[in-house]
Amino acid sequence: MPFVMKPTAVAALLTPLLIGTAHLVQAQAEKPVAIDKRYETEIQNLAKRPAVQSAFKFFMDLEPQTKQDLINLTETPSPPFKEQVRARKYADMMKAAGADSVWLDDVSNVLALRRGKGRQKTVVVEAHLDTVFPEGTNVKVKQKGDTLYAPGIGDDTRGLTAVLAVLKGMEKTGIETDADVLFVGAVGEEGLGDLRGVKNLFKPNGPKIDSYIAVDGDGIDEITHRGLGSHRYRITFKGPGGHSYGAFGIVNPHGALGKAIYYFTQEADKFTREGVKTTYSVSVIGGGTSVNAIPYESWMEVDMRSESADKLNGIDKLLQTAVQRALNEENQMKRSGPDLTVDVKQVGDRPSGRTEPTVPLVQRAMAVAKFMQVEPKLSVSSTDANTPIANGIPAITIGSGGKGGNEHSLNEWWLNDKGYLGMQRVLLVLLAEAGMK
Amino acid sequence: MPFVMKPTAVAALLTPLLIGTAHLVQAQAEKPVAIDKRYETEIQNLAKRPAVQSAFKFFMDLEPQTKQDLINLTETPSPPFKEQVRARKYADMMKAAGADSVWLDDVSNVLALRRGKGRQKTVVVEAHLDTVFPEGTNVKVKQKGDTLYAPGIGDDTRGLTAVLAVLKGMEKTGIETDADVLFVGAVGEEGLGDLRGVKNLFKPNGPKIDSYIAVDGDGIDEITHRGLGSHRYRITFKGPGGHSYGAFGIVNPHGALGKAIYYFTQEADKFTREGVKTTYSVSVIGGGTSVNAIPYESWMEVDMRSESADKLNGIDKLLQTAVQRALNEENQMKRSGPDLTVDVKQVGDRPSGRTEPTVPLVQRAMAVAKFMQVEPKLSVSSTDANTPIANGIPAITIGSGGKGGNEHSLNEWWLNDKGYLGMQRVLLVLLAEAGMK
Repeated sequence: MPFVMKPTAVAALLTPLLIGTAHLVQAQAEKPVAIDKRYETEIQNLAKRPAVQSAFKFFMDLEPQTKQDLINLTETPSPPFKEQVRARKYADMMKAAGADSVWLDDVSNVLALRRGKGRQKTVVVEAHLDTVFPEGTNVKVKQKGDTLYAPGIGDDTRGLTAVLAVLKGMEKTGIETDADVLFVGAVGEEGLGDLRGVKNLFKPNGPKIDSYIAVDGDGIDEITHRGLGSHRYRITFKGPGGHSYGAFGIVNPHGALGKAIYYFTQEADKFTREGVKTTYSVSVIGGGTSVNAIPYESWMEVDMRSESADKLNGIDKLLQTAVQRALNEENQMKRSGPDLTVDVKQVGDRPSGRTEPTVPLVQRAMAVAKFMQVEPKLSVSSTDANTPIANGIPAITIGSGGKGGNEHSLNEWWLNDKGYLGMQRVLLVLLAEAGMK
Repeated sequence: MPFVMKPTAVAALLTPLLIGTAHLVQAQAEKPVAIDKRYETEIQNLAKRPAVQSAFKFFMDLEPQTKQDLINLTETPSPPFKEQVRARKYADMMKAAGADSVWLDDVSNVLALRRGKGRQKTVVVEAHLDTVFPEGTNVKVKQKGDTLYAPGIGDDTRGLTAVLAVLKGMEKTGIETDADVLFVGAVGEEGLGDLRGVKNLFKPNGPKIDSYIAVDGDGIDEITHRGLGSHRYRITFKGPGGHSYGAFGIVNPHGALGKAIYYFTQEADKFTREGVKTTYSVSVIGGGTSVNAIPYESWMEVDMRSESADKLNGIDKLLQTAVQRALNEENQMKRSGPDLTVDVKQVGDRPSGRTEPTVPLVQRAMAVAKFMQVEPKLSVSSTDANTPIANGIPAITIGSGGKGGNEHSLNEWWLNDKGYLGMQRVLLVLLAEAGMK
């Protein structure tokens, strides 16, 4: 889920639980974009329709059940790479809600199809199944006042229940769309999941998708239309190792790592001082067994991010060049023994890109915000929308309503502060995009 | 204890148990040194004396008791910084053996004084009390054939029993010396003990010592007359840490560490290509919590060694310069936030130096080897002798006889292959040095 950077969030990022966290909103100044009048009109007209009005009311009536769904799903653990149990449960809920057909794909994404009348287009509404929390985490929901506390309750279990409620609302009120709607519970959004679920949807033999609405995060004002891409590597230099005095003269993997960091950061510093914001971080390092031994390995984990695919590829190349240079120079320095080798493993690859604010999907989301009397906030983040965006498919990520906090920490909370507005918002954007019959 | 570098020893050095290991013989080519005829004569004459002959015989008769002492002391754990229990036991044994006075100093070194007739000089005969093995290690002695197996049995518990047997032999046979003899069980020889025990003996208010014979290692041919010094540091760069994208632009401790490694190794490589063998190793590194977070710290452990105090100080200076340069440059590179800081902590300081082979103590040890019909091997190592050597006091480290192996591993063994020759050797060197009445 995306969240706005606050000091407390920064502190939380230093806790071990945060390993694998991927996304973040960094509001970068962009020129405000006008909402085309026709989308405002479109949304106003949609909202007036009796079936839509009924659905709006239904979301409010459904609140006790939606709360129960949220508790039920939150208490079904869904650790990274182990979303199957929750996936099956969510599939059952989708079936019970009335989807025409529900299935799990080969990575355990839940797909629930609701057929449209025209069937020329497919619009996806998706939330992600996985949490950042490892197996064994206590996911029991606790309520204090009106606030619900549990790991994963907001991110993105609330999103799952919002998507489910939209399906229920459409079924209840008999709303028909022109396009097919594919309701999706996606695996692998978080951290090392590396957008595994959404990437699977966009495989060459995947379903045809024309428009993509990811539901992640709280509130009703934010519209993530830019995908913050990232490349992540774990780079390991390996040598024979040996006694620091007796084996002196052999290659030292830490020597190569030091050189690689030095060459990379010198070049990356210059590279990132102009153009689209592009970042790099040598984040975790390790290797070595004893102060009196030349280590047999030295490794680092590196994170690079940019909204621009070109910049991301550019800084990636600087890293690869630095690593090879360091390898060669450390090997030239050796006085005895075998050469160092290096293993460069990509552990993260999230594509960059943007859905232009003039694209109808973004315009519609903005018009919905305006209709709901909130200021639309266009933002950048790393979410499941990154993948369709990079594939040239209109895509946004929007919140599911209510208020939340402490995402990715054990103290995560979500408060149902007019949460039904989240479902109303998703429904309006979806109907505008899919075309209401 | 010193040991000759073998491939198995190198492999063993990579095991966690080896953390803190410090010493090592690296036979560096030195011109063979002649033994002055007068020392050969001196040793021959000493060995002929009836009391010495009786002592020689006594060591053989004492074997069953010496074996019992070895088992008893080996099974009294003596982990780093926790040698007190063994120290008290060893003190009791020294008292029972007939020392004039026995006491523990403020770091729990055992000191057992045997007064000489002239009392103008003091000769130390010492073995170290500590082992490398942590608390809870199973130190039960197992015998297979004639070989005894137990952690620490050779290094240096055998040395303790050899020193004890020499005292017993002198008491039994009424041998009198001109100089006082101080029998010592020293703490803190191994690893992070950093020669703590022997350093305490040479404190300004410590006993006056004129000659120092450390008993460590097996066999009867090796004579360590050169002290391999070492400096060890743990260096930690610290910054605020933050999200890899959101906080981008703050200082990155890993960036500083990479620079420090780069600058240090570039200079150290040149510095160590000539002159007395001097080595450096960036051995262990760490820091960072998550691939998506700029770390708040980055640290390395560095080991530097040389026989030459000048070279050791020289390479140390290169490290300090590199660290400060890296700190400054990383701070200059930052775009926001506070500066990095660095903590430079010295975790090891073993002095360098050599007792010239022409010094009587070394000459005598060589003459004893020749008398015992073995080829004396002059060698370099890091042992308790480093400290007196660095203080300008004649000092050597010699083995205690028998055969041993797998020092610092759980499979350590010692075999009593004419182990009494070890006591004969120590006695002859001691009597030559202390002057027999």
